[in-house]
Amino acid sequence: MKALVYLGPAKKALQDRPKPEISAPTDAVIRITRTTICGTDLHILKGDVPTCQPGRILGHEGVGIVETVGPAVTMFKPGDRVLISCISACGKCAFCRKLMYSHCATGGWVLGNTIDGTQAEFVRIPHADTSLYLIPEGADEEALVMLSDILPTGFECGVLNGKVQPGSSVAIVGAGPIGLAALLTAQFYAPAEIIMIDLDDNRLEVAKRFGATRTINSADGKAADAVMKMTAARGVDTAIEAVGISATFELCQEIVAAGGVIANIGVHGAKADLHLERLWDRNITITTRLVDTVSTPMLLNVVSSHRIDPKLLITHRFKLDDILAAYETFSHAAETRALKVIIDA
Amino acid sequence: MKALVYLGPAKKALQDRPKPEISAPTDAVIRITRTTICGTDLHILKGDVPTCQPGRILGHEGVGIVETVGPAVTMFKPGDRVLISCISACGKCAFCRKLMYSHCATGGWVLGNTIDGTQAEFVRIPHADTSLYLIPEGADEEALVMLSDILPTGFECGVLNGKVQPGSSVAIVGAGPIGLAALLTAQFYAPAEIIMIDLDDNRLEVAKRFGATRTINSADGKAADAVMKMTAARGVDTAIEAVGISATFELCQEIVAAGGVIANIGVHGAKADLHLERLWDRNITITTRLVDTVSTPMLLNVVSSHRIDPKLLITHRFKLDDILAAYETFSHAAETRALKVIIDA
Amino acid sequence: MKALVYLGPAKKALQDRPKPEISAPTDAVIRITRTTICGTDLHILKGDVPTCQPGRILGHEGVGIVETVGPAVTMFKPGDRVLISCISACGKCAFCRKLMYSHCATGGWVLGNTIDGTQAEFVRIPHADTSLYLIPEGADEEALVMLSDILPTGFECGVLNGKVQPGSSVAIVGAGPIGLAALLTAQFYAPAEIIMIDLDDNRLEVAKRFGATRTINSADGKAADAVMKMTAARGVDTAIEAVGISATFELCQEIVAAGGVIANIGVHGAKADLHLERLWDRNITITTRLVDTVSTPMLLNVVSSHRIDPKLLITHRFKLDDILAAYETFSHAAETRALKVIIDA
Amino acid sequence: MKALVYLGPAKKALQDRPKPEISAPTDAVIRITRTTICGTDLHILKGDVPTCQPGRILGHEGVGIVETVGPAVTMFKPGDRVLISCISACGKCAFCRKLMYSHCATGGWVLGNTIDGTQAEFVRIPHADTSLYLIPEGADEEALVMLSDILPTGFECGVLNGKVQPGSSVAIVGAGPIGLAALLTAQFYAPAEIIMIDLDDNRLEVAKRFGATRTINSADGKAADAVMKMTAARGVDTAIEAVGISATFELCQEIVAAGGVIANIGVHGAKADLHLERLWDRNITITTRLVDTVSTPMLLNVVSSHRIDPKLLITHRFKLDDILAAYETFSHAAETRALKVIIDA
Repeated sequence: MKALVYLGPAKKALQDRPKPEISAPTDAVIRITRTTICGTDLHILKGDVPTCQPGRILGHEGVGIVETVGPAVTMFKPGDRVLISCISACGKCAFCRKLMYSHCATGGWVLGNTIDGTQAEFVRIPHADTSLYLIPEGADEEALVMLSDILPTGFECGVLNGKVQPGSSVAIVGAGPIGLAALLTAQFYAPAEIIMIDLDDNRLEVAKRFGATRTINSADGKAADAVMKMTAARGVDTAIEAVGISATFELCQEIVAAGGVIANIGVHGAKADLHLERLWDRNITITTRLVDTVSTPMLLNVVSSHRIDPKLLITHRFKLDDILAAYETFSHAAETRALKVIIDA
Repeated sequence: MKALVYLGPAKKALQDRPKPEISAPTDAVIRITRTTICGTDLHILKGDVPTCQPGRILGHEGVGIVETVGPAVTMFKPGDRVLISCISACGKCAFCRKLMYSHCATGGWVLGNTIDGTQAEFVRIPHADTSLYLIPEGADEEALVMLSDILPTGFECGVLNGKVQPGSSVAIVGAGPIGLAALLTAQFYAPAEIIMIDLDDNRLEVAKRFGATRTINSADGKAADAVMKMTAARGVDTAIEAVGISATFELCQEIVAAGGVIANIGVHGAKADLHLERLWDRNITITTRLVDTVSTPMLLNVVSSHRIDPKLLITHRFKLDDILAAYETFSHAAETRALKVIIDA
Repeated sequence: MKALVYLGPAKKALQDRPKPEISAPTDAVIRITRTTICGTDLHILKGDVPTCQPGRILGHEGVGIVETVGPAVTMFKPGDRVLISCISACGKCAFCRKLMYSHCATGGWVLGNTIDGTQAEFVRIPHADTSLYLIPEGADEEALVMLSDILPTGFECGVLNGKVQPGSSVAIVGAGPIGLAALLTAQFYAPAEIIMIDLDDNRLEVAKRFGATRTINSADGKAADAVMKMTAARGVDTAIEAVGISATFELCQEIVAAGGVIANIGVHGAKADLHLERLWDRNITITTRLVDTVSTPMLLNVVSSHRIDPKLLITHRFKLDDILAAYETFSHAAETRALKVIIDA
Repeated sequence: MKALVYLGPAKKALQDRPKPEISAPTDAVIRITRTTICGTDLHILKGDVPTCQPGRILGHEGVGIVETVGPAVTMFKPGDRVLISCISACGKCAFCRKLMYSHCATGGWVLGNTIDGTQAEFVRIPHADTSLYLIPEGADEEALVMLSDILPTGFECGVLNGKVQPGSSVAIVGAGPIGLAALLTAQFYAPAEIIMIDLDDNRLEVAKRFGATRTINSADGKAADAVMKMTAARGVDTAIEAVGISATFELCQEIVAAGGVIANIGVHGAKADLHLERLWDRNITITTRLVDTVSTPMLLNVVSSHRIDPKLLITHRFKLDDILAAYETFSHAAETRALKVIIDA
């Protein structure tokens, strides 16, 4: 089968690889119908993710059709159309029993990282019963690809952890796909203000169409002042960090209101300054999280009820044969205005 | 009346000052029967609290008897025995309406800071109806002095924010009075393990008597290793910072389990490193808080039911005339083994 | 001044009454600009509310302008435009300190019940600082009249207590003004399904325009079957009772899913059967609540952000001089299709 | 093997039955070392549980040693000492994914009900990985038998659902084994008052030894008055129903404070009156629940830390050969003063 293979820093290729097989009784093999590329795949290609070794098929998002199942799989059968979660969960370790699937003792983020992933014609999914989700009749599969990772990540790490509430004020720092997913799902809770902050005017325009009530281009280094002006000097109840660098995390510290929450989504490669000398008495909460995808059934419900349309995030479409072009487009988002690219397998 | 007055960095005196009077219809004047000294008073005396100006009567803890009340006070009358909260709350601003009394628009921590405090024969309490608590019949007043600040601080900032749960594991870094208050009140939730960490063996001994299941002297710089050994390499569910320096806050980052909470109580004068490069995917929560004293009625109930005895924290007793000696004893805690000193007014 | 006065069962009149005056330092007198009639006023007129005695000016909803304030009022001054809460809260008793204003020791629902109400040119509001809300610049006053009672009631008693969640299913039994207020505010949480149940097709039509995803006319006695069909036999996560009779409360018991909530809003005059023999092992929750109006600041934010338009509930407008006609219209809702009537004072 | 078999209403026998075998890849067969008898077993013997048919081996509690495991079992291996949960959970259906194991699509309470149970030398446990718990080194197995059902039931249905809090007041109606389990586990949260109500003075004596702060013998029909006297006419924050009849459920309605919770544990055979005409505006919550045993890992931690000793509940011990005598003793608790009987297999 065709598969996009990581070959070491800055190297990848579309290769022919053997079709995966069931190796544990709880496995399923899925024929991929649609997949996509994540910012994390670009991190891997920079060599920044040491757990991912050369030779690995990339990709941790996608939808497909069940091809075969192991003898202990009871929730799915060949022919079922399924959503693949970016997080594999055994459903029985101490972390899974606490619904913290991200830290599953034998799963977590393994797809396209420590085991072969979804940018291929087929993929083996371990712990299939608790890592796949049946696609409802009549659902739009393209929209559902956004539920493998990006929507639960924006929702769980940003919106849920950030305790977005009806009438509250939210700032989202970073209007990339993850920040926009947080923006879409924040609206589940009817906040009064959602302020989007980014360096790219195009993305801020998109944010407005997606429901941001205000936008700030932070290029002038005065984003904190702008937020304070917009909030009568109170700051925001929820500051969501969706970039992953120290500067944006520190911006969140400047704009969070007393009693508010900083919800980190960004993948950080370095430490940040935490200004406890200013924050120790401000009654704030800071959260970090790798997505648990515990909200996937709920997100399927919401998307099925058409309360949000995650398809808004899709800007480009490619065939699997053209996945190198898809990578090219996705990795030059500033020029191509790419958000999420769909790859038909 | 006699009063302990701050006269600028490193300077204080027991002076004769005019008895305070009602200045707003919601004020009460209290005759102090017992007060105490807080670590924060020592901070002020170092010149570290710029809001507190020379000439200020210090002290934000105490019990006493209502002397006079303003015309709008309805909950108290002269002769009532009352507990004074370290936090004054108007009960009607936006923060008070959210039970975040610490940030009251016209109150918060003002006593012995921006208005005269409790280390005196009398004190004027603003917003009396929502800043005083009636002392139940037969209650031990000395024990209740611990409820002005130290117990709600340990409980709200450490235990509640730290989400201590039945069966969970807790580490408390710092076995001073506040850390010990957290230790006492953590036991409201029946955690399986409470590990106390300090540099002072005497305080660790005290911690054992107060209910710590294990203690670690961190003088060798290996406290993190010791905690990991005690927790089968998982770390603790709750790490409570009760010192207020970067090193101890960073220790908390090393020992918190995935999914756990770092609850900061310490008053920090400098920023700390936050190791997001290690913590971004660990699903942790960090909280800061100035005590709201919203748990005071509950703590009065618990203490009245004898489930804990806060009097354990009292090591020395003085008369108001000898308050300079009390300061001497309290500020040399390593030698004097002082925890809390009671001052009879 | 003119005022609508209750004169005993089935008797009321528009009378001339003396203008109210400040009687406690925490009082304010408000010049009413707009008020409305509540179903509870009709209950009083049936003689069903023994706490309300003949001679009482009715009404517990409205907006107006502060005329005078008592000496202890600090949050408002003459000329301020304010929303009047149906619940008066002292802000300092044990219940108020737990944000359970409905049970305030010296307040609660007193307006138009045990003290004179808002269907008049002026009204005295006790505990003004914690019972009035400043109207934001540019807000629509008619819309805000809905925030005195109906919106917080639908939201707190129905939606909040009912734990409406993104993606969840909700049934609201009763499409009167309160049920519709629950319908509007349920959408703060993006439920996947909101099923509206009533006997009146007109009201069900209104419900559809207000956001109901499905409607059931329960006249055939088969509403439970219909709900089960709509929910794949699971029942609904939240069943909101907004009628106040046994039959509808029992319907809720039939349609609530395992793990679900029955949130009662209705004012009941008789006991109901609770089928514990069927429900004991179904992990359900039943809640009752008199509105606390603790969500009023949040509702003001949401309405100001135009996420919902409570004005949708207004069907008729009258002058205070014509309030008897307004009562006539409101009390014959089936024929007049009245929901809420606005009375300009 | 020997097994206690239900033979129809009022009929049971110790029979010789074939040793159970693995029938699904997720099964385990456990050699029982200790089991016990539950009130529910007596219900079955009265013919009140139609799902349990003649020929069934009874029992849903116990500890034992893993004998064999199916090929998909990964968490346990032969020789492991395990606690058997009374609830079997697949870990993958919609209910299990919400931690509502009681309603597992292919599990729930099946042991000794719809499949053969634990009052035997061996038992087959379906969904073994998520229905068994490893016994910690050095743990007391007799104490742990209390964790199969009675402790999680008292804790989850009574204490957790009842929102017992530090400083709060609790009444437990019914001092049988389940009520006493609620009493033991309520103390995890340091309530100020725990009032135990029963008809049997012996059980009330036991309750006092177990930590009840007050007891009421309700034989005179004046329990509600007594509770009101003890609580300054406020009622209790939490009323736990641990009997299962209308009268005790109605007593709970009389003694619950405004804002309080009625947590039902009892198994009810008939409906009860719900006095909505008194309760609709009292802001109360009523909960029902079949135990989910989701707290089992936590309870194992608490018991291992010796914060409570569930062994206190054990009054008698028998050999499996004498299980008919054990039933005799357990079913005449008033005379034998039996609480829980341990059966060594």
